[in-house]
Parts: sequence; C-alpha cells; structure tokens
Amino acid sequence: MPNYNYKVRLHGIRAFAFDVDGVMTDGSIIAAPDGELIRIFNAKDGFAFRMCRMKGYPVAIITGGTSEGIVSRFSSLGVDKADIYQKSRDKVPDFLDFCNRHGLKPEEVAYAGDDIPDIPVLKIAGLSVAPADAVPEVKDICDYVSLYLGGRGLARDLVEQVLKVHGDWNLDTEVYSKLF
Amino acid sequence: MPNYNYKVRLHGIRAFAFDVDGVMTDGSIIAAPDGELIRIFNAKDGFAFRMCRMKGYPVAIITGGTSEGIVSRFSSLGVDKADIYQKSRDKVPDFLDFCNRHGLKPEEVAYAGDDIPDIPVLKIAGLSVAPADAVPEVKDICDYVSLYLGGRGLARDLVEQVLKVHGDWNLDTEVYSKLF
Amino acid sequence: MPNYNYKVRLHGIRAFAFDVDGVMTDGSIIAAPDGELIRIFNAKDGFAFRMCRMKGYPVAIITGGTSEGIVSRFSSLGVDKADIYQKSRDKVPDFLDFCNRHGLKPEEVAYAGDDIPDIPVLKIAGLSVAPADAVPEVKDICDYVSLYLGGRGLARDLVEQVLKVHGDWNLDTEVYSKLF
Amino acid sequence: MPNYNYKVRLHGIRAFAFDVDGVMTDGSIIAAPDGELIRIFNAKDGFAFRMCRMKGYPVAIITGGTSEGIVSRFSSLGVDKADIYQKSRDKVPDFLDFCNRHGLKPEEVAYAGDDIPDIPVLKIAGLSVAPADAVPEVKDICDYVSLYLGGRGLARDLVEQVLKVHGDWNLDTEVYSKLF
Repeated sequence: MPNYNYKVRLHGIRAFAFDVDGVMTDGSIIAAPDGELIRIFNAKDGFAFRMCRMKGYPVAIITGGTSEGIVSRFSSLGVDKADIYQKSRDKVPDFLDFCNRHGLKPEEVAYAGDDIPDIPVLKIAGLSVAPADAVPEVKDICDYVSLYLGGRGLARDLVEQVLKVHGDWNLDTEVYSKLF
Repeated sequence: MPNYNYKVRLHGIRAFAFDVDGVMTDGSIIAAPDGELIRIFNAKDGFAFRMCRMKGYPVAIITGGTSEGIVSRFSSLGVDKADIYQKSRDKVPDFLDFCNRHGLKPEEVAYAGDDIPDIPVLKIAGLSVAPADAVPEVKDICDYVSLYLGGRGLARDLVEQVLKVHGDWNLDTEVYSKLF
Repeated sequence: MPNYNYKVRLHGIRAFAFDVDGVMTDGSIIAAPDGELIRIFNAKDGFAFRMCRMKGYPVAIITGGTSEGIVSRFSSLGVDKADIYQKSRDKVPDFLDFCNRHGLKPEEVAYAGDDIPDIPVLKIAGLSVAPADAVPEVKDICDYVSLYLGGRGLARDLVEQVLKVHGDWNLDTEVYSKLF
Repeated sequence: MPNYNYKVRLHGIRAFAFDVDGVMTDGSIIAAPDGELIRIFNAKDGFAFRMCRMKGYPVAIITGGTSEGIVSRFSSLGVDKADIYQKSRDKVPDFLDFCNRHGLKPEEVAYAGDDIPDIPVLKIAGLSVAPADAVPEVKDICDYVSLYLGGRGLARDLVEQVLKVHGDWNLDTEVYSKLF
C-alpha cells in the first residue's frame, strides 16, 4: 500500500471516474426474468453526483456491465451519456478517452474500483480509491481505501473530500432547483 | 447540536413531514430498465403512518425524487395525495404550503431528513429529526438524532414518541378494519 | 414476558400460522410503479414450509397486506390458497377460521407475529412467537422470542423446533421429489 | 466436522458445482406479482465465474428452484445451459450427469451447498463447501466452512482458492475482452 498521505493528491483532482458494481452498488445484481440485470444505487451518492454537476466536475462511469438502468440513473444525476462507458473490458482506453474528451490529464482524475479488472486504471489515475470491501489485490495498490462500502457511501466520501479541498462542497438551492 | 432535551418539544407536535430517500428508506434506489426508480419501504413504519391517519395527525412527504411507487405507497397508508410533494428541490415552500393548508404553524410540525437539501426545513420545523445514518451536517443541527436508521425504524420511532405523549399510541381494531 | 419454558408447549403444536411483513420478510416492501407491493422471502424458511407440507402440518398465512406475490410464493411452497388470509385487519376471526377448517383447537396452533395488529392472535395461540426484531409490545407477551430476525430464519427456527420434538424433521428425498 | 486440512483437497479439484439459494445468493427470493421468483446475485462472484470460463474449469448450477433469471445470469457468465440444472430435487443424479458429461470423477468436483437437500451431493463431492450461514446439518459434514456468506463472497472464495493452487488466478485482459 502506498505510504504517503493520499490527501496531498486531493488538490490536483478535477474529475472523477467510477466503476459500477461494488463501487456505486454493494455488488448486488438483480437478475430479472427477461435477462436484464438491475442495480441498486444509493441516494447519498446521488447527491454527490449532483454536486459534481453543479460545480462543473466531469464524471465518468466505466463498467463491464450493461443495462438501461445504469444509463438512466446516471444521466438523471447529470452524467453525460458520452461519459458512460458500458461493456468496458479493457478499461484503460475508455478512461483515456474520457480524459482526452475533457482535456484532462490522467493524474487529474480520481478513479474508484473494487475488483481485478479495475487495476490497470487504478494504476494510472491521479487518485486511486477502493471501497472498504474491495478485493485485496485492489486495496494493496490504491492510494486511499475508504472506510465506506461500495454503494453505501464510497462515492459520496470521495467526491466530498475533493470538493471540500476546492471549496466547492456547498449547496446553492436556487441553482440546484434549476438544474435538476 | 442543540443542548436541551428534545422531549419537551414532543408535546407541541401535531403533524409530521418526511423526506423519502434515507429516511423512509435506507437510501437504496433500484434503477429499473425503463428509467423508473423504485424504493424499498418498511412495514413497521407503514403501521406508524396508519396510526397517524387513525388519530388525525396530518402527514406530508417532501422528496426530491419522483416515482409512481412513492405516491401509491403513501396514499395506501392514508397520506393525502395533496400532501405528497415530489421533485421538491427547495423544500421550504412545500413545507410551508403543507402547514398552511392544514392550519398548522411550522413549530407544530416535526420534520425528518438525512441530507443537505433537508437542512433549510429542519431549521424551521418544530422538531428536527435525523436517522442514525444521516450526514454529519444534518445531525449537527437536529433536535433529535434517532438510534434507528432510515427505512429501518426511524419514522416509527418518531411517530410513536409523539403519539405516546398525546396518549394516542393505541389501536382500535374496529376503526383499523374500517379505515384500511 | 411469560416465565415458564416455552419448550413444553412445542409438543402440543400441530399447525402453524404466520404474519408476513416482519415475520416471513425483514419488513422490506418494494413499491413497484404500478402500485403493487413486492416482498422478499427467504429460501431457508421456504424449505421449512415444504417440510410442513411433507409431514402434514397445516400452515396459514394471515397478513394485513395483499399481493399476487404472497399467494404465488406460498402456494408454491405447499400452502393451500384457502389458508392464505390477506387484507386481514382483525386477525382473530381469520385465525379461528383456519383452526375450524382443519379441526384444530387454537392451543394446537403456533402463531408468529411482530407488530401490534398481531397481539390479539398471539394471546390465543398455543405458542406465541416473535422474531428478534419484533416491537416491544409483542415481545412482552410472547412465549418465545427467537434469536432470528423476521425473514432471516424466524420461520425456519419455529418449524424446526416443533417438527423435531415430533420426530418429523427429516427429509425423504423421494417424497420431496414427487411433491414439489 | 472433518478434521484434516481441506487445503490438501484443493489440488485435485478441476470443476465446480453450486447450489443457488443461500450459496450464490443470501437466500433472498423476490416474489414478483406474476409468480416469478427473482434472485439477487453478486458481482465479485460473477468475476470468479468468468475466470473459470477463461481458464477452462467447468461450472454447474444445481438448484431446486427455477427461473429465467437463473439461466440468463449464469449463461452470461459463461456457464453452459446444459450445466444449469433447475428443479433438481434429488441432486445426486444431476451432479453425476455433470461429471459424466465432462469426463470428471466426483472427487474432482467441488460442491457448495447450504441446506439439507444439498447433503447427499456434499457427501460425494471432491470438496464439500458451506457458506458461513449454512444450516448446522450442512456445516457438520463439510470439508470447508467459509468465512463468507452465501451471495456475499462464498463462490469467489472457493474459486479463488482452487485456481490459485493451480496457478490460474490471473487475468489476461485481452482474452477477457474477447470472451465476454
């Protein structure tokens, strides 16, 4: 595990990318009869995404999964559809595409992942973040292992820490009412 | 955190208003393929709502979310549809509208919320209540932080305490059978 | 709380009646957009119901709720549709109807409930049982408060204890294969 | 409980068979209004199944249940439909059929189960595995009782241990991208 204090890295972060299963959810996948896989998201994480939108922080979703629910959930929270990468098996090109399209360097983007396919991206992101229940291989290489579980506050924890160091963690109710 | 005993405020409460996500639920949001967001409610909270209906305590729902499931769930528990405020971004006007329509002063209404958009209402309600897993900003300003989690007994805890000080926490099976 | 050992009562029990929300479930109610309320049941409880069916113990469901899912779930486990009482507000007549139709005295039937509307039946059942997370008013009057939570082993615990004292807790795979 | 170290058995295992409820899930069964029973699976377990597929370990599903969701979930993870045994009441013939079709001896196949109907298969499998929350009768006869719960890491734990002793627990991203 890296031995410096991850907090020095918060200042350089200007965007976020998230895995879905085990990060934006607790890893549960509801298998509907028609073959659709349905995820369970978290309201407090959702509010953090809205804050990103209001304060101008780009957010990407990079997931090996695919479902209509993922797209509709995250676009309703202000994530651009172009920034939702589904069926992403090799996640590095998708991560770099997100960076390029937004004029960001990889070291300016925090990435949160919980399992082995996330490792290549975690290694190049500006801040690598794991939920408390990530697999050991992921925790071993992350800058920051949160006390929060996937789907139970991990995304909120990360976004809140970054926006706070930038002075952006505050709600303008009027803007909020207009945007959503 | 307020340093008086919140119990003195119970006597003045004659109505309730509740946020939904994280208060009437544990914050989980099931993202259905068609874009619909589905909530998971709690049966013991439901019984508390029925007691409110039987004893004549108005109940409001004030939520930033919107879904058919919210309306159908709470109307089946006896909440008037006019008292269900959805897509509420600035919650204060909705809270005041509920008060006005029922001839109540804000200090006669308890409000339970768990996240930052709830803070303006929590500050004007007669009793401000947070679930055990509310965000720190909310817990800091609430009169009462329950030991119960959102969706796992918070609403029941609040309603029960208020109805008990008024001598209203008792079930007339005959009335119950007729009303629901 | 009764001060005798509830185990002496197990020998006289020949049938079971169960509340649904908080007993056969953890109290969670999924509010579908069409107004349907969907419950989450437990597989280990389900196996206990099948054992009842195989060994000839009548089982009733007595719930204030109503949904197609309740009927289809319990009939698939061998509960007769006539023994599934929905929208039961005053549960005593339904409990007595179940007893009468099966030629049972109330003292031969165990009832498990978790909330205030269950109390009148709990008072007349041969064995009154509460899950670990029942409300205090129910725990106070029950013969047996299980260590298991509603929907997480409560029904299994009760059925297993009764069938064991009668020597009926054993699986004949051949009969099992034919019945289900 | 067997008193040898189960780890010596890992070396001989070349395939896996899994019960569903309580093993690939936490035992929760969502009872949809149309009678369909819906399961909730786990993403980290899913990745383990994909590793089996990539490394050539046959995997069977042997369940007493039946639903479209089971078939679609496990085929999407690389399990052959012929290896998904539903409505299996006497599980031994299905287990042996899986062995025969893949040219495996029962002692080369690990089986994970959590309840009484799993016992006959657990007794003949090469490695018998129980989740931490299996019933006592199952735990008593299993070679290995995992610290993980059903649906919360049990399958991942088992697959990972077996593939690691064979040097197969490593991800080739290129193969992964092509297969799924």
